Amino acid sequence: MMKSKTGYFVDGTGEYVITDMYPKRPLKNYLWNEDAYASVDQFCFGNAVASIGEIRRPFAGAERLVYIKDEKSGAFYSPNRNYKQEPFDEYYCHVGVGYSKVVGVYKNIRTEYCYLMPPTDKMEMIRVTVRNEGKEKRKLSVYTYNALEVNITEHIGSGWSKYYADKALLLFEHHIFEAKHDYATVFVKSNIKPDSFESTPNAFKGIYNGFENPVGLSKPHLDNTESTFEFDYGAAFRYEIELSPSEEKNIVLTIGTVRNKEEAFALSEKYVGEKAFDLAMAQQKQVLSSYKDVMTIESPDDYVNVMANVWLKRQVGFGKTWGRGLGKGFRDVMQDTSAFVSFDHALAKLRILDALRHQYFNGNAIRMWEPDFKHPYMDMPAWIAATVLAYLKETNDFTLLDEKVGYLDSDEKETVLVHTIKGCNFLLDSLGKHGLVLWGGGDWNDSVNNVGMRGIGESVWLSIATVKAVKETAELLEKIGYDKTYIDGLYKKSDALTENILKHGYKDGYFIYGYNDDGEIVGGQESEEGKIYLNPQTWAVLAGIFTGEKGIEIMDFVERELRCDYGYVVCRPAYTKPTLGVGRSSCFYPGSFENASVYNHGVAFKLVADCVNGCGDRAYETFKMICYDNPKNPDSGAEPYAFSNMYLGPECDLRKGDAPLSWITGTAGWLYRGITEYIMGLKAEYTRLRIAPCFPSHWETAKVKRTFNGCTYHIEYRRAEENYIVYDGARIDGNLLPEDTQGNTHTVTVYVAR
Amino acid sequence: MMKSKTGYFVDGTGEYVITDMYPKRPLKNYLWNEDAYASVDQFCFGNAVASIGEIRRPFAGAERLVYIKDEKSGAFYSPNRNYKQEPFDEYYCHVGVGYSKVVGVYKNIRTEYCYLMPPTDKMEMIRVTVRNEGKEKRKLSVYTYNALEVNITEHIGSGWSKYYADKALLLFEHHIFEAKHDYATVFVKSNIKPDSFESTPNAFKGIYNGFENPVGLSKPHLDNTESTFEFDYGAAFRYEIELSPSEEKNIVLTIGTVRNKEEAFALSEKYVGEKAFDLAMAQQKQVLSSYKDVMTIESPDDYVNVMANVWLKRQVGFGKTWGRGLGKGFRDVMQDTSAFVSFDHALAKLRILDALRHQYFNGNAIRMWEPDFKHPYMDMPAWIAATVLAYLKETNDFTLLDEKVGYLDSDEKETVLVHTIKGCNFLLDSLGKHGLVLWGGGDWNDSVNNVGMRGIGESVWLSIATVKAVKETAELLEKIGYDKTYIDGLYKKSDALTENILKHGYKDGYFIYGYNDDGEIVGGQESEEGKIYLNPQTWAVLAGIFTGEKGIEIMDFVERELRCDYGYVVCRPAYTKPTLGVGRSSCFYPGSFENASVYNHGVAFKLVADCVNGCGDRAYETFKMICYDNPKNPDSGAEPYAFSNMYLGPECDLRKGDAPLSWITGTAGWLYRGITEYIMGLKAEYTRLRIAPCFPSHWETAKVKRTFNGCTYHIEYRRAEENYIVYDGARIDGNLLPEDTQGNTHTVTVYVAR
Repeated sequence: MMKSKTGYFVDGTGEYVITDMYPKRPLKNYLWNEDAYASVDQFCFGNAVASIGEIRRPFAGAERLVYIKDEKSGAFYSPNRNYKQEPFDEYYCHVGVGYSKVVGVYKNIRTEYCYLMPPTDKMEMIRVTVRNEGKEKRKLSVYTYNALEVNITEHIGSGWSKYYADKALLLFEHHIFEAKHDYATVFVKSNIKPDSFESTPNAFKGIYNGFENPVGLSKPHLDNTESTFEFDYGAAFRYEIELSPSEEKNIVLTIGTVRNKEEAFALSEKYVGEKAFDLAMAQQKQVLSSYKDVMTIESPDDYVNVMANVWLKRQVGFGKTWGRGLGKGFRDVMQDTSAFVSFDHALAKLRILDALRHQYFNGNAIRMWEPDFKHPYMDMPAWIAATVLAYLKETNDFTLLDEKVGYLDSDEKETVLVHTIKGCNFLLDSLGKHGLVLWGGGDWNDSVNNVGMRGIGESVWLSIATVKAVKETAELLEKIGYDKTYIDGLYKKSDALTENILKHGYKDGYFIYGYNDDGEIVGGQESEEGKIYLNPQTWAVLAGIFTGEKGIEIMDFVERELRCDYGYVVCRPAYTKPTLGVGRSSCFYPGSFENASVYNHGVAFKLVADCVNGCGDRAYETFKMICYDNPKNPDSGAEPYAFSNMYLGPECDLRKGDAPLSWITGTAGWLYRGITEYIMGLKAEYTRLRIAPCFPSHWETAKVKRTFNGCTYHIEYRRAEENYIVYDGARIDGNLLPEDTQGNTHTVTVYVAR
Repeated sequence: MMKSKTGYFVDGTGEYVITDMYPKRPLKNYLWNEDAYASVDQFCFGNAVASIGEIRRPFAGAERLVYIKDEKSGAFYSPNRNYKQEPFDEYYCHVGVGYSKVVGVYKNIRTEYCYLMPPTDKMEMIRVTVRNEGKEKRKLSVYTYNALEVNITEHIGSGWSKYYADKALLLFEHHIFEAKHDYATVFVKSNIKPDSFESTPNAFKGIYNGFENPVGLSKPHLDNTESTFEFDYGAAFRYEIELSPSEEKNIVLTIGTVRNKEEAFALSEKYVGEKAFDLAMAQQKQVLSSYKDVMTIESPDDYVNVMANVWLKRQVGFGKTWGRGLGKGFRDVMQDTSAFVSFDHALAKLRILDALRHQYFNGNAIRMWEPDFKHPYMDMPAWIAATVLAYLKETNDFTLLDEKVGYLDSDEKETVLVHTIKGCNFLLDSLGKHGLVLWGGGDWNDSVNNVGMRGIGESVWLSIATVKAVKETAELLEKIGYDKTYIDGLYKKSDALTENILKHGYKDGYFIYGYNDDGEIVGGQESEEGKIYLNPQTWAVLAGIFTGEKGIEIMDFVERELRCDYGYVVCRPAYTKPTLGVGRSSCFYPGSFENASVYNHGVAFKLVADCVNGCGDRAYETFKMICYDNPKNPDSGAEPYAFSNMYLGPECDLRKGDAPLSWITGTAGWLYRGITEYIMGLKAEYTRLRIAPCFPSHWETAKVKRTFNGCTYHIEYRRAEENYIVYDGARIDGNLLPEDTQGNTHTVTVYVAR
C-alpha cells in the first residue's frame, strides 16, 4: 500500500483513498462521458457541465450534500462534508476511475456518498447509502441537497421550479427566449419518495445561514417551496428512515439537463434507481479494465505502475474526450491521440479526422475549436505527422491515409495524406529572413503570443519542431512508397532548415527561442529577461538535430541552467515586467505558467529527450522530481493520482512549488509515452513490437503485459551484460519482435545491459 | 416616528433604521459618486463597481466584515453580521442618504461599521468605531475583512498581492495583457497600522471554513500571507486595541481601484483617516440638504413626506448618475431628467445633451449606451419633447434649444430644437398600414420585443405616446414663436393619428396594445393571452385623447379589469406559454416583469392619469397600494425607503406580491412628479409657478416649501368651498403665481375645494 501525505493507493484497484479530508487544497477527480463532465473534490463538491455543440452548459453547482439528523436528539451533521469537523469514526474519500465515494461514519451510522456519471447523457448520479452499525434501532431523517445551475439567460423571471410528487421529481425550467441553446430544463429525480422538499438554496439553507447550519434542518419537515424569479436553484429532499441494527438504505438521485419536461421524465425513468446506478458503475469499471488490458506494467516503482496502468490513462482519457475541457485544441488533440491510440484505435481515428477538419486549406490549423480560437499560432501542423504515424504504427490501418476530409475554410475534401503533406509544406514555406519558421501568434508556448504578429518574428523552437515533423512526414512517405524525389526534396529542405537553426538559432552554447518582430532575440543572452528556454534544447534532441555526445552536452546544459528542486523551468530568469515583444507570458507573475514555472508538459518532453539520449537515470529522476512525493517539494497540494500542469517556479517568491491546477494538461500523454515507449521501451511498429528500454540503473527487473496486433505479450525484463531479447524461448536479432497475425500469446525476456 | 415591519424612519433626517437584521430578503442601500457605485445590504455587504467608460469594473466584493475578539476569553463575533445570531444588546442598521451604518452592541462593546463613497474617485470608505461601554478595561483584537475583485482577465497568474507595511496598505495588482481596461490595481489602506494581515479569503477564512468561523481568528496573529495565482483576493487586517471604560477607537479603511501603484499611493493619501471620512460624510449630507431645499412637503401623510423630501429624490438620483446601473437607457435618462431637473438644473442640461448625442440622424435613438444596446426600439423619440419642455419650464433657460449636438451615426451637429423636431417627425413618418406608429423592436415595454421586427407591426400605445409628444413639440414651438403653419401641420398630423387610434386601436371599450407583424392583435379580446394592457389606457388620458368623462370611463375600466390588491397589473391574463409574436415577455413566468406583474413604473403612469382626471382619491389610493405597508401585501420584502420595479402579480402562483428587486426603476421619477406636480400640484411654468393640487378627499391641510426661479415659496394648503390662491396676502386670479425675478420669499395659501 502506497501511502502519502493525504491518503493512500489501494493495491490492485488503483483507487486512491483521501484520508486527510481537509488538505492544503481540494483534491479533484474528473468524471465524464461524451455528453458531460464534472470535476469533484474530496467531498464530491464541484460543477457538472454538459456539452451542447460548442457550448458548455453547467447544470449542477458546487454543493452536493447529505445530512443525517437523529430524530430523537435533533442533532445533525453532514457525513460527506463534516462542516464542523466533528470527530467522525471514519471519514475518507475513495477516488476511483469514474467515481468518487465519500464515507463518513459517526455515532454508529455509516453513510456513503457515491458520485458518478452514467456512460451517456447530460447527467450525473448519486447514491447515498445509510447503514446502522449500532445495536439499537434508529430513527433518522436524511436530507440531500444539490446545487443546480438553471438560469440560461440573464432573465431570471423566465425560470421556475415545480415538484412532481408522483414521480419524486423536481423540475426546473427556464422559458426560452434569446437563449443560446435549448437545454432549458434541469431535473432532479429521487428513486424513493421524499417526505418533503425545497427547490432553492434560500429556502433550504436560508438567506442568512450557511450550509453548515441550514434552516431546513431546524424544522420538522421542509416547506415544499416551489419558486420563480430566483438567482439560484437547488434541490433539497428530506427522507424519514428507520434502520434496525445492520440495516441499510439507499437513495439514488439522478440529475440532468434536457430540453423539456417530457425528456426529463423519460431520462429520469431510464436512469432510475439502484440497478441503474450499479450498471453505470460496472460500465466505468469495464472501461478501466479494457485500458489496463492493453498495457500493464510491473516495474520496481509502484508509483510508476499505478500511474502508467491506471491514472495516466485516465488523465489522457479526459483529454481524449474533452480536449482541455473548455475547448478542443488542435495540438492538444493531436498529442493526446498519440498517447491513447494504443487503448482506443477507433476513437484515435475519429479524433485525427476531426482535428484535420479544423486545418486551414493552407496547411496551418486553428488553435482551438468548440469554441473557435483563432489567434494565429503557427505550430499546429508540426503535430500532424507524428500523430498520423503513431496511429499507423499502432494499428497498421493505412486506410486512414485515404480518408477524405474537408478544411475549416474550404469545402474541398482531400485525403489525410494530403492534409499531412500540406501541414509539412506550410511550415517549410513559412520562413523568415533568417530562414527560420515564422513565429506568428506563438507556438507550443501559448503565452508567447506577441512575438510575431507582424509576420517577421521567427521561432527557433518551431524550426526545430519542423525538422522533426518533416522527418516524420518523410518516414511516412517512405513507408507507403511515395515518390522518392519528393522525399529527397523534403530531406533537403529539412537539412537546410537545420543549417539555419545551427547558424542563427544556436548561440553561446544553447538554442535561443527566436527572433521577435523587432528583430530582438527572445531567449538568448542578449535578452533582458527570459534568457534561456527549455523546449528548444530538449527538442533539438527529440528532432535529432543534436545526437550522441552533442545531445548529452545540450542536456547537460539543461541540467545546469534550468533544473530546480522539483523539475525544470520553462525559461529563466522570469520576466518581472510586461514585455510587449514577448506577450502574455511576460505578464504572468514570475514563476507562474509560461513565465518560468516548472511547466510539466515541458518537463515530460525533457524526460523523453533523456531517453533518446539513453540516459535512463536522468529520465527516471526527472519523473520523480515532478511526482507528488518529491521530498524537496513535499507540500505542492497536487493530487497524487493526477499530474498538475505546473509547479510555481523557484522565482515565484510567493508560492514556489505549489501546484494549483491539475488534470488539464498535455503532461499526461507525454509522461504515459515516456514511461511506456521510452523507459519500458515498447514501441509499436506497424505489425511488430519493438522493445528498447531505457531503465534507470537501479532497476533490476520488471514485467509488462501488452496486447498488440491481436496478440498478448508477457514481457519480463532482466539485467545482463548486453542487450538482447529472447522470444518464446529463442534469442532473436535486434529489438524488433517477429510479426504475428494469429493472435497468439508470447513470452518475451528482455535482457537489459547494465 | 414611522414604524414598519423591518424598522422605522427617524424623524427629520429621513434615515431609516433597520431593526430586523434578518428580513425576508436583504434590504439594499445604494451609494454612488460619478465614478463608482455600490449596493449594500443591512450588513453593508454588497459589490462596489467602478465605471471606466462603458465598462463596469467591480472592485469590492460582497463581504465587508469586522470581528471583535476578546483576547482574554478568545471568544469572537462579527458585530456587523452576527453570523450566529448571538443575543446582541443592540443590533441595527442606519440606512442614510449616502451612507449605511451598522451598529452592534454586545458584551459592553459598541461597534459601528459605517460605509460610504467619497464624492469622487473609484473608491469606498469604511469607518469602524469600537467603544468600551463597560466598566472594565478591555483588551481586544479587531479584525476587518473586505472581499475584493482583483482579476480583470481570465489569467489568474497575472495577479498578486503585496503589503506595504510603512503605508499600512495592501496592494493587489493584475499585470495587464489582453485586458479591456487598465484599472488593474486595487488597494486597501488602513489609517492605522494593523498588527498583521492576510490578502486572500483562503488565507483568512480558510479553504474549508466559512466567514462565521474564519481560521484567522483561531490564531494569535494573522499569517501575513501575500499571494499570487488566486481566484479570489480579500484584505484582512488585525488590530490589537485596549479600551478603557468609555474609550473608543476608529479604524478607517479606504478601498479603491486605480491604474497602478503610484496612483494607489496618491489616492490612499488623499482619502486617509478620520478627517477624510468626516468630510466625505459631510459632503453627502450637503447634497441631501440642497435637494431638500428645492422642495419640502408636509402633507398629512408622513410617508408621502419622507419619500418626496428624501428618498424618491435619492432614488431618482441614482438614475440621474448611473441610468439603470448597467447602462444608460435613452428613455430612462429622459424620464429621470424630467424628474430631477428641479434639483439639479446643470446636470439636467448635461444629461439631455448627452442623450441627444445618442439619437440617430433619422430621429430615433439607441435604446441604451454604456454599453450600446441596439435592438430597434421605436419609442425613444417620444420622450424627448417632454423632457426638453420640463427643463425649459423649470429653468427658463432657452439657450438649451440652440446647443448643437451630433448624432450617433453622423458627425453633423444640429441644435437641440432640430433634434426634438426630428424625433417628433420620425414617429409621425413611421406609420404602418392602420396609420399607427410602427412597433419595431418594442416600445416602453422592453420585453414585447418581437412584435414588429419585420417592420409591419404597429403599437397603439406608441401611437398614443406620439400624440402626446407631438402636442408637446407643438407647445414648445408655439412658446418660441416658431412658424405657425408648421405647428398647425403638427396638430393636423396629431389629429389624424388620434383618429386612427380611435378607429383601429379602440375596441371592445378599451385600447388594444397593437398589431404584430402577423397582423394579430396584441392586448385585445382576440388575443389568446395578454388581452388587456395597462399603458394604452392610462396614456390615452395622459395624451389627452380621452378627457373628462371619457377619461374617467377608461380609468374605471382600468379599476375594473387590471386592479389587484397591491396595484395594477401591466397586462392580463398572463402569458402561460412562449408566444413568438409577442417576444420575451411571454416567456417570463406568469406574473413576473412585463408578463402581468404589478410593474410600478406603469402604476405611476396610472397615478398621474388619475390626477389628470382630477381623481385625487384614486391617485392617493394607488400610491398607498404600492407602498411597503399595504396591509393587503404586508410581506413583499421591499425596502420601505425605495420603490421596487414590480410586485410579482396575482397570477404568479409561486410568489405573488413579492418585490424581489428595487431601486433600479423609472417608478421613482414618475412617483416624485406624481406627488409634487400632480397631487401637490406644483408645476414650473418658465418664470412662474402654477399650483393646481389634486388632493385625496381626506386631506385637510398641507405645506410645501419650494424654491424656484431664485425665490422661496412657503405654501400652505387649506380646504375651502372653491379653489383659489392667496399670494402674499392677496387673492389672485387662476392658479399661476405672479412672476418674481428678484429672489424674494413669498407666502402662498392655496385653497382647495372639497
